[in-house]
Amino acid sequence: MTSAKHAHVVGLGLIGASVALALGEAGWVVTGNDTDPGVVERALASGVIASRVADAALALVIIATPAGVVAEVAHEVLSRHDDPTLVVTDVAGVKGAIVRDVVEPRFLGGHPMAGSELRGLAGARADLFQGCTWVLTPTEATPADLYTRLHGYLREVGANVVAVASGDHDRLVALASHVPHLLAGALMNQAAAAAREDAVLLQLAAGGFRDMTRVAAGDPAIWPDILFENREAVSGALLALEGRLAILRDALEQRDRDALETSLTSAAVARRQLPGRALDSDNMAYLRVLVADRPGSLARVTMTASEMLVNIFDIEIAHAIEGNKGTLLLAVDETQAERFMDALRGLDFGVVREK
Amino acid sequence: MTSAKHAHVVGLGLIGASVALALGEAGWVVTGNDTDPGVVERALASGVIASRVADAALALVIIATPAGVVAEVAHEVLSRHDDPTLVVTDVAGVKGAIVRDVVEPRFLGGHPMAGSELRGLAGARADLFQGCTWVLTPTEATPADLYTRLHGYLREVGANVVAVASGDHDRLVALASHVPHLLAGALMNQAAAAAREDAVLLQLAAGGFRDMTRVAAGDPAIWPDILFENREAVSGALLALEGRLAILRDALEQRDRDALETSLTSAAVARRQLPGRALDSDNMAYLRVLVADRPGSLARVTMTASEMLVNIFDIEIAHAIEGNKGTLLLAVDETQAERFMDALRGLDFGVVREK
Repeated sequence: MTSAKHAHVVGLGLIGASVALALGEAGWVVTGNDTDPGVVERALASGVIASRVADAALALVIIATPAGVVAEVAHEVLSRHDDPTLVVTDVAGVKGAIVRDVVEPRFLGGHPMAGSELRGLAGARADLFQGCTWVLTPTEATPADLYTRLHGYLREVGANVVAVASGDHDRLVALASHVPHLLAGALMNQAAAAAREDAVLLQLAAGGFRDMTRVAAGDPAIWPDILFENREAVSGALLALEGRLAILRDALEQRDRDALETSLTSAAVARRQLPGRALDSDNMAYLRVLVADRPGSLARVTMTASEMLVNIFDIEIAHAIEGNKGTLLLAVDETQAERFMDALRGLDFGVVREK
Repeated sequence: MTSAKHAHVVGLGLIGASVALALGEAGWVVTGNDTDPGVVERALASGVIASRVADAALALVIIATPAGVVAEVAHEVLSRHDDPTLVVTDVAGVKGAIVRDVVEPRFLGGHPMAGSELRGLAGARADLFQGCTWVLTPTEATPADLYTRLHGYLREVGANVVAVASGDHDRLVALASHVPHLLAGALMNQAAAAAREDAVLLQLAAGGFRDMTRVAAGDPAIWPDILFENREAVSGALLALEGRLAILRDALEQRDRDALETSLTSAAVARRQLPGRALDSDNMAYLRVLVADRPGSLARVTMTASEMLVNIFDIEIAHAIEGNKGTLLLAVDETQAERFMDALRGLDFGVVREK
């Protein structure tokens, strides 16, 4: 009898297979499946999964299918397994509809902000999530113990876990991921069209161009679902971006040096201030947060951290929580601790610092 | 008495100082200057340059000033030095006006397709040009010996030298560099504006977003000159890109899956086919090209290679060329040799292959 935890991955594409590899490296027994029997064969042969079917009690099921079928698969998984400590999560890039659809308290939506220009099983890497932001979308009803368990599992694959409300997530990934993806595609297509006349263009495509179009090499098949699902936010952000480009073009045509410099300077300042990957902290502060029996306390605490760019490196339940009552033990960076404690107190949480 | 070659760099920003470092590592004696005395002090103190003033015959002067003053500096350098074997080149991002203005046969325009989000002397790196495409813009009047010498010098800093007509260069870098730069800035500004409301957006900015906005962190001050100088091409390309985005937005709003998939798939295919860095070849073919006394032979041979994405790893004059008469010895990749020879024969050049 082994004490290894068991996980099952549904969908062995780039993300699913990378999760399987990462959990495997962290000592988990990982099973998995895919609608493509050839993919399953290769995943078995290369040791990405130990078997097709879970043969022990599962701690975790990761649904890494296309976004359009996540809810259906989640309902099926939840009805097949009745273990109350099971955590079911997904990796879809749009969260609103899924979180609205799958209200079972053992389901918690997720989205790792990781990708690769490689596709499918062949592109999978055990270290894909090292330092990556992995969004969880708790609701008012999310049990604290479910959240803390999944947080811990995702820390095992190296991710930096961030809590965001599903609606906010969708609005913000339109800006941070979906529009950039469309942009990379448009830029690449524009250059490719010109290169059909002047092949030398491809020789002039230096590091900047390569950087900007890298995501366009990813799997195109997953994108229409994501974009349709998040249609309104993407369309609005795209229109606003077209407006920004038209303003820049106007400044260029009017030779308005100030306007161009102001715009490029504010972009440079913002880009240089982008926070880097926070894998760990040199000096950790441990906070004890008293969460009364108000619903949604867990979501409020974790989302407040996210909004303040405070990384929660560890989150545990210090005393057994029934419903939403009890104590959360959080590990955060020392330099952010006081500010975060003040914010939590402002929300009427009791907070004490562990010595 | 040493046999080291001497170079002088005017303008010790990111590119100028990196050229100085790279030449220094290749065994050159490098002097240099900058309008900012503090920069010169730091360049001297850190050994980027050996001195402020050249104290020996110069083989190479690199003008790495802002684009707007290149022609003026070039005229001054050329009038101060009368050594016929001197090569004067520049690194400005727009070439048409400079090449039209500086017609001296010892000047040959250049543009290394390299950059960094770091700025100035402090960001300089000796390996910045390793594998980078370095465009030269020969004209019909460019002497073959001038071109072959500069090609050799740039190979010493690790660059992959490509010949492109100055007008073509400007039109194509609008697509490959100038528009992408504006785009990166607009994308970063849009995200920064949203992050002022929702700071968590910055946590969601994953690798793709970071890649796409990386160039926006570069020095904003150099860009207005570049953009104004290449105004027409940039404005046209920007307008066309806005059109592409509007078409994607329309497909999204109409839920036109085919249109989205077709567009994203063609982008993915094109991105995966982007040629990588060609530093060297496993199997080199050596071609002897007879260039008759027609003007512009050197430009035609080298630009034909560029158009065909054939890398010329080495180029030498096999017999002394007077005017434009003689023999060029080219080293190209074995797999590209036959195709390239056919093309040159189609242009009435005699070509034989060295055993």
